[in-house]
Amino acid sequence: MGDMKAAFVLYEGMTALDLIGPYQVLATHPDIRQHFVAEKAGPVRSDSGLTIVADTAFGDLPDPDLVVVPGGGGWREALEMTALTDWLAAVYPGVQRMTSVCSGSTLLAKAGLLDGRPATTHWAIRPVLEKLGAVVSEERVVIDGNVITGAGVSAGIDMGLTLAAQLWGERFAQRAQLGLEYDPQPPFDAGSPDKAPQDIVDELRAMIG
Amino acid sequence: MGDMKAAFVLYEGMTALDLIGPYQVLATHPDIRQHFVAEKAGPVRSDSGLTIVADTAFGDLPDPDLVVVPGGGGWREALEMTALTDWLAAVYPGVQRMTSVCSGSTLLAKAGLLDGRPATTHWAIRPVLEKLGAVVSEERVVIDGNVITGAGVSAGIDMGLTLAAQLWGERFAQRAQLGLEYDPQPPFDAGSPDKAPQDIVDELRAMIG
Repeated sequence: MGDMKAAFVLYEGMTALDLIGPYQVLATHPDIRQHFVAEKAGPVRSDSGLTIVADTAFGDLPDPDLVVVPGGGGWREALEMTALTDWLAAVYPGVQRMTSVCSGSTLLAKAGLLDGRPATTHWAIRPVLEKLGAVVSEERVVIDGNVITGAGVSAGIDMGLTLAAQLWGERFAQRAQLGLEYDPQPPFDAGSPDKAPQDIVDELRAMIG
Repeated sequence: MGDMKAAFVLYEGMTALDLIGPYQVLATHPDIRQHFVAEKAGPVRSDSGLTIVADTAFGDLPDPDLVVVPGGGGWREALEMTALTDWLAAVYPGVQRMTSVCSGSTLLAKAGLLDGRPATTHWAIRPVLEKLGAVVSEERVVIDGNVITGAGVSAGIDMGLTLAAQLWGERFAQRAQLGLEYDPQPPFDAGSPDKAPQDIVDELRAMIG
């Protein structure tokens, strides 16, 4: 047990669900030894107020096997967090998988990991990711070698299941999906900019992007 | 701002995603004043290791308007947490909405709030909820007056959107859904016991139920 060091990255202003989606899929596998990593150990406040405890400082985990980077409402400030992007760049050569959810991919790009590579992000952040050098996809989950990126927030669950199937096979992923009863039935069909009312799309794009 | 006191309940052994799903939908509304409540304020460890910080003790929040109760892998132990079920029973007469996700509904039932009432829960826990006096539904989200229950774990997102539409209208709910890019594309179709391979269903039922 615990042969794969998984780093779930925390920072002020992250979106909690970005991280908790893939965490909840991955954490039940017996090979995972999980670390909640941040600039320093201690409580970290997310963008809507929920506070999660980091148990490990970046400097104390130089050799993760798997990294999950969430996005967050404070994505502009996040891009200036050099402690985080420096750590991502430093650990990348040793990882089996580097992953992100939502605007987390902009942090991978800022760390120099997505130059000319296909990647996805929150729909409202696509122009930002493009400026940072990635080849932006509108897919919900993008796999490019050992880098897997997910679209906005809830896409982390789909990214986590995709990753789990890669690492441990379809059977484990299906088991995780059934355990989470992930048989989604959204009460509305408004989850992508192609489907939501245009004025809501415009409003959110102005607010987030 | 902050006219609706929302209590997001924490306890040792809860499942983080049960809580974070509806939290992430609801927390962006300007009327919500959120409290992360537990037996006492401080860090609370969830069933797969993630630790969330409670900012409020049950005793310091006698009058929430909205309560969200998560389930968790330690549901048997949770049913013995009288500090939690006593608080649920005490605050219920004053709430606008009492809600649960996953095995959280068994805690509502233990608190005496579901006698003879329709409710849902994680698919593997249905017999437990029935024994506790509820009329168990296989629906993903069940509304019975001011009580709304969601099925397993990820159903909390659908429950949260349903609740948001009730409280603040469809437009707000659609906006929240688009903000979370909740346009689910599970890589497998194994999220309910009707769809997953039977041996996986049996295995999880034996483990969880």
